[in-house]
Order: sequence, then C-alpha cells, then structure tokens
Amino acid sequence: MERTVFFLDQKEMPSRWYNILPDLPEPLPPYISPATGKLATPQELSRIFPMELIKQEMSNEQYIDIPEEIQAIYRTWRPSGLHRAFQLEKALDTPAKIFYKYEGSSPAGSHKGNTAVAQAYYNKKEGIKRIATETGAGQWGSALSYSCAMFGIECKVYMVKVSYNQKPYRRILMETWGAKCVPSPSTDTKAGRDALAKDPLSGGSLGLAISEAVEDAVTHEGTHYSLGSVLNHVILHQTIIGQEAQKQMEMAGYYPDIVIGCVGGGSNFGGIANPFLKDKISGKHKNLRCIAVEPMACPSLTKGLYAFDYGDVAGMAPICKMYTLGHDFMPAPVHAGGLRYHGMSPLVSALYHHKLIEARAVFQIPTFEAGVLFARTEGILPAPESNHAIRVAIDEALTAKKEGKSKIILFNLSGHGHFDLASYDAYHQGKLEDYEYPIEGVKEAQKTLPKVSL
Amino acid sequence: MERTVFFLDQKEMPSRWYNILPDLPEPLPPYISPATGKLATPQELSRIFPMELIKQEMSNEQYIDIPEEIQAIYRTWRPSGLHRAFQLEKALDTPAKIFYKYEGSSPAGSHKGNTAVAQAYYNKKEGIKRIATETGAGQWGSALSYSCAMFGIECKVYMVKVSYNQKPYRRILMETWGAKCVPSPSTDTKAGRDALAKDPLSGGSLGLAISEAVEDAVTHEGTHYSLGSVLNHVILHQTIIGQEAQKQMEMAGYYPDIVIGCVGGGSNFGGIANPFLKDKISGKHKNLRCIAVEPMACPSLTKGLYAFDYGDVAGMAPICKMYTLGHDFMPAPVHAGGLRYHGMSPLVSALYHHKLIEARAVFQIPTFEAGVLFARTEGILPAPESNHAIRVAIDEALTAKKEGKSKIILFNLSGHGHFDLASYDAYHQGKLEDYEYPIEGVKEAQKTLPKVSL
Repeated sequence: MERTVFFLDQKEMPSRWYNILPDLPEPLPPYISPATGKLATPQELSRIFPMELIKQEMSNEQYIDIPEEIQAIYRTWRPSGLHRAFQLEKALDTPAKIFYKYEGSSPAGSHKGNTAVAQAYYNKKEGIKRIATETGAGQWGSALSYSCAMFGIECKVYMVKVSYNQKPYRRILMETWGAKCVPSPSTDTKAGRDALAKDPLSGGSLGLAISEAVEDAVTHEGTHYSLGSVLNHVILHQTIIGQEAQKQMEMAGYYPDIVIGCVGGGSNFGGIANPFLKDKISGKHKNLRCIAVEPMACPSLTKGLYAFDYGDVAGMAPICKMYTLGHDFMPAPVHAGGLRYHGMSPLVSALYHHKLIEARAVFQIPTFEAGVLFARTEGILPAPESNHAIRVAIDEALTAKKEGKSKIILFNLSGHGHFDLASYDAYHQGKLEDYEYPIEGVKEAQKTLPKVSL
Repeated sequence: MERTVFFLDQKEMPSRWYNILPDLPEPLPPYISPATGKLATPQELSRIFPMELIKQEMSNEQYIDIPEEIQAIYRTWRPSGLHRAFQLEKALDTPAKIFYKYEGSSPAGSHKGNTAVAQAYYNKKEGIKRIATETGAGQWGSALSYSCAMFGIECKVYMVKVSYNQKPYRRILMETWGAKCVPSPSTDTKAGRDALAKDPLSGGSLGLAISEAVEDAVTHEGTHYSLGSVLNHVILHQTIIGQEAQKQMEMAGYYPDIVIGCVGGGSNFGGIANPFLKDKISGKHKNLRCIAVEPMACPSLTKGLYAFDYGDVAGMAPICKMYTLGHDFMPAPVHAGGLRYHGMSPLVSALYHHKLIEARAVFQIPTFEAGVLFARTEGILPAPESNHAIRVAIDEALTAKKEGKSKIILFNLSGHGHFDLASYDAYHQGKLEDYEYPIEGVKEAQKTLPKVSL
C-alpha cells in the first residue's frame, strides 16, 4: 500500500546545511557597500549581522553543521512531511506523479522559521539582546517573533502600514509571541518620521520598513537587523527542506524530473532546489529541471536585468548583482505579498544566469484557481505565494498527460494560507485582477541602477 | 539525545477505533425519541444518520476497523505528533514531564477532522449526496466541509450569525472547500424563517442552527445531518488520538500519571482518554487519573445534574442521560466557543458518574494566560478551547513541583488558534472577562428537563 505522507524519523533529520556556493560554475560577484561604493567588508556588515552569519554568507564549505540548539527547536515541526498528491493526480487524470514538501506545519506557518530560528540563535550567541526587522504581509515577522521568543530575545517588527491595518491577525500573532509590532512609517525612527512629515497618511512600503529596521538596529545598543530572504545564509538555512525531501523521495522510490518553487527573494526555492541541483551539477542527474515561479506582476528573473542594484528602496542595503526590475520598481498589489520584491537573491540569480534553473512568470488568477483545486483535492489551504508553485506543478502534470509521460514532479508547499483568506474571498467573488508587467515603468526604474566598477 | 516530537510511521497508524462501551461498568442509558417519548429506534435515527454510524453508536464490539478509504485521508496528517514540552517544563521549573498530542495539523486545524472524514465516508457509502450541519465558531463546519470535498459530497453549513459576521475567515475556508455556508437564522428553513419573523435582527444560536440543519436534512432528498461531538460514534472516531498517543508514550518510555483534555461535547477528551481508561478499567494502570476541563461559564460536569435532557435547544435531537445545565441554559460568551454546550456526551457523563474520570472548571483569563505561556515556550498557538487543557496541565505540573514528584502529564492540544486571534488580542489588551457560573439561571433551566419514565 502506497503512503500519502512520507515522514522521516527525527533521528534522520539532516544535521548539516548544504552550501551550494563552492559548487557554482564561478564565484558569486561580491557585495558592494552603498556607503563607500567599494567592496563591502565583514566589519561593515557586522554592524547589523552576527559574525557567524557573515561567515556563512561568504563560506566555501560545502556543508555547515546545524548547532544542536537549532536542531532542538527545528524538532518542534521537523522533519516536515513529504506528501504524494494522489487526489490531485486523480483530478488531473495525469500519468505524472506529484509530490510536495509541506512547510506550513511550522508554528508561524511557513518555511521562514528554518532561517528565523538560526538567525535568532547566532544573534543570541553573540550577546545580542534585541533584533529589529521589517515585514510585509507578516510571514517573516511572525517567524522571527516566534524564534526570538524561543531564545529570549526582544523583537521589534516594522510592519508595512497597509498590511498592519489589513491583517490584524498577523500582528496579534507576533504580539502573542512577545514581539513589539508597529506600523511603518512609524515615529520610532528618523526615516519613519521623515516619511510621515512628507505624507502623514502614507501606507508605507517594504523598502521604507527595511530602512526603519536597519536604522533601529544601528541606533540601539545590543540590537541587530535580520533579513528573511535574498541572502546566501538565508538560503543556506532553507536547504534542510531539500535535503529532507531527497531522503523522502528515496523512501518513495523516485527521483524528481522537475523541482518547483515560487520565488520572491528566492529562499524557499533555493531551499528545496539546491540539494537537488548538487546532483545536476555533479552530472549524477544532469537532466533534472528546476523551475522558479514568479508573479507576472513582478517578474524579476524573466523580465529583469542581471545587474548590480540596491537590495532596498532606500539604498541602505548592500549593492549586489542580481536580476532586478530596478530598486524603485513598485509591483502591483498582488495578494502574494511575499513575492513582491524588485530583485532576486544573488545566488538564485547566478543559478539562472548559468542556466542551471528555469524561470516562469504566472498570472494571479490562475494561481488561485490552482490553489482552490489543491485545497479541494489535497485538503491543505495553501498560501497565495505557494499557489504559484502549485500552478506550474499542475501545468507540468498536464503537459506530461498530453505527452503521455509519467514525469515525477516535486514542489515546495512553502506555507499555509490561514491568514490569507481575504484573498481567497476576493477570488471566489471574481474580484481578483491580473496585472500585466508594466514594461515602461521598469525601463524607468532600471535607469536608477547604481554604477559599479570592480 | 531526547526528542521533542515522537512521530509514528504511517504503517503504525492504528487501523481500528477503540469502543469503550463494552468496557463500561454498566450499559449506557438508552436514547429517548423526542417525538414519541419512547426508546429511539435505529429506524428513526436513520432519517438523519447512515445506518453504519447508528450501528457504531450502539455497538458492543471493543474494536471497529477503520476502512482503508478513511485511513487514506487520515494519512494527510496522521499519525499526528506527540510532543515533549521541554521548554514549558523549563519555564515552570517543574520535575513533571509534560507531553502533548497535537491535533492542529489537520487541514481544518483541529481533532474534528477525525470524525468528519469518517462521517462523510459512511454517508457517501450509503449514497448520500449532501450533508447539512450547524457550526458555531466554525471548527466543526470547516472540518466537515473539508471531508465532504474529499468524498465529493455537497455540504451545507448553518453558521450562527454572530460568528458568521465575526469570523469571516472560517466562512471563506469552508467556501474554499466548496461548501455552502449561510448565516443562521436563514431564510432557507421554516425554523430560520420563524426566528427571523420573531426577530429580524437575531444573531442566532447553536440550538437554532441545529434545528435548521436537521430540518434541511429531513426535507431534502439524499441529504443527511451530521454532528461533530457528543455522540458515541463521534468519540469512537476520536480514539485514534489516544491509541497513537499510547504507542508514542511507549516510544518516549513513559506511561502517563495524568491525562487531560478540554470538554464541550466531550469528543476530544474521550478521544485521548478512552484508550488509556481501558488500562484503568482493566486494573493494569488503576491509579491513572483523567481530567476533563470545562469552562467555569459552562460547567456541566462539575455543576450540572445527571439527568435525561434534550441534546439541543429546540428539542428535536434525541433525549439522553447526561450531565446537563438544562437545554435552555445560555452560557456567557466565552471565547472557547466549542465548549459552550449545555450538556455533555452521555459517554463522558457515564465515565464521570462511575468516578472513572475527574472534572475541573476553570476561568477564562487563566486559560489565556496558560495559552500565551505555551505559545512563548512551545511555539504553537493553541485554540482557546485547548487552553483549558493547558491550564490544568500547568496546574498539575506546579502541584508536582510543590510535592517534589516527577509526574508524567499528557494532554490533548486539540487545535490551533489561527482563527481565534481576536480573542488573544482581547486578552493582551486586558479586555477579557471571567464569567461566574450563574447558579440561579441554571436552576431555572433545569426545571425544563423532560420527564422520562423507562
């Protein structure tokens, strides 16, 4: 009898993260300091990050041990289950075999916990008593709030004001874990006060919230800043997903032909794909396809430029080489808030540049269509971000059907949609919009790219 | 190295439910028909329930096989994890060892799925195409909506209007699974129209919603009614919780001294406790204590009368012998909506009557205090109902500390609180109230008990 979910025993949970950096065809371009225009130094970065994470960011070790203290917290929800989507396959009448790794069982409901716990731990170890961060829809802010509670660290979250007002449940969740959450722009920072002086009714933006959190970190003693995606160390921490999935696919008796994840900053995709990409790079599974799925409203990989750009709107974060729509680009208000980032992780960008992965942009309404079909067949209610991965998994399964091929498809179900039901309501009521990629706006935004000469 | 979560392999998932009826000191008192005042017959019940469930309701078999079709759906989230609450123990500085079984990983977020899947299956097997039910806060309605989606059955949910308006996320969740959800009182039934004629602004009640759902079932061809707690077959389906917990406690190397669950209708408590009670009844673990925890605002076990009463406010459900506050009793609006039931499962009532279990009533604010401490230590955000069990688990752990005894405590974490964050907000803001048990009101309500002569 075949099983629906493949569980690993906790003793089989990977005890190391996989670092793909040494396996890349060539080294990643370096980070540039926005202050000096020169190579960013570890010393500069150490004003906001613990040295252990900076080392991981630039490490050339293929594997990095997961400290026991982090493993202990991971064991609250890890190893996460790998599901065979029998019911979805049946509904699609496809010869493809569809598997998904479910990361929504973490306390905050998404893969974000994998790095939040690690980041809280390394900060704690360095004597940090307080962490400031930003959050958009709240997935990252709640994962970090949870993790700070686990290690007894104060947590201050600057939440984009529009979301703060629209999604009170996410705020209350953070507060229940003991975090302080304020709407951004706030009066707690100069950046916030300046923004409010210009426009007292400002609904805020992720870029501004980042600026507030970074300013908070550098102006408070014992405080660091924490980022939930984009950076190498964040993707590193997420590789536990793909490593577990490899063991579980082995239990299931298959190796995937296609691995799929949605991309905003790129961390859940890198987390599931990188351990498999190791096999592709080594030639062991050279026909493996990995597909990064992004919203048509914010298609940095498929329509962006591979160039040096700022990581944030305010130009305070390091400059890095990535696929970008320009740091001034303001994406349309799609409900997959976690995918509304102008750039892309430098690491995922390099994988795409070297043609190790594919990218695909999808419209919003078909992603919800896929999410509802998934909920009605597999039962789990997916986050709007995860619906992007589901959409392409379904499309690939339908292609397999057309071609009469029994493809093995694996995707990352990065989180649940319990706090995103308003967007499902909009879908049910036919009120969702599909947003075209505004090519002119992006051309304008790309004119603002910083000049970097190495 | 000790583990945080004990997972069972899916092959070890129990394949039978445990029926405690034949192990009781004496048979349960029979159900009485509200229509005839005489013993309720299976034929009468078959107007609203499938015959297979009616047989289970009255079965004297100690074990009943779980059909493979139900096991297949269970495997979406089962076996559920048994957690050792290391962080909570540390915060309490107690020598007690605390374990909890987490039922919130089911798609609808609580233990309700265990019986919803089974009920949908047996109805499907009998050719039923549509199921009507009521829901208060929405836990049951969403579990049944999910289960009906799994078996391709239409689902109609009458949701108490106050909750329908206050908790739109629960409604949207049901709709996403394809159910039709209307506020009760509705214009879809005579009961609803009568109520609206009397009071067009009526916010509804659980009793009225039951009446609407039962009327819907008996007036629509191919439609049955479904109940999410109270009845024997519901508790039977929940015994998978306790059976799994027994295997997992064995993995952990302990047998519990105390098993704790919250009680409204009694099904999650019966589900975890009954398999352990088997050991108590047989004399194998005669010192085992099982504690049913109820809200002080609705203390049917600790303050109610053991008497024949109607199962619903409208007097349409079978009359049964149970601990009751009177079917007219209207509990104060505590946030643990799932525990606001005037009566108690006849089975749990009998266990209490025979002194096989204990009962304890707790105030609302201390339950939230316990829930927040739990979230900040163990990470998982509990449902307000589950906070009742956590409160008593903590109290017992503190007693163990005072007595210097290393007690083994197991409780059922019946569900997550993702849709209950407004109540946490009220707690954080100091707006929660503690409700005293209104003894005079109950005395009045108990005067309305039906007269039954057997």
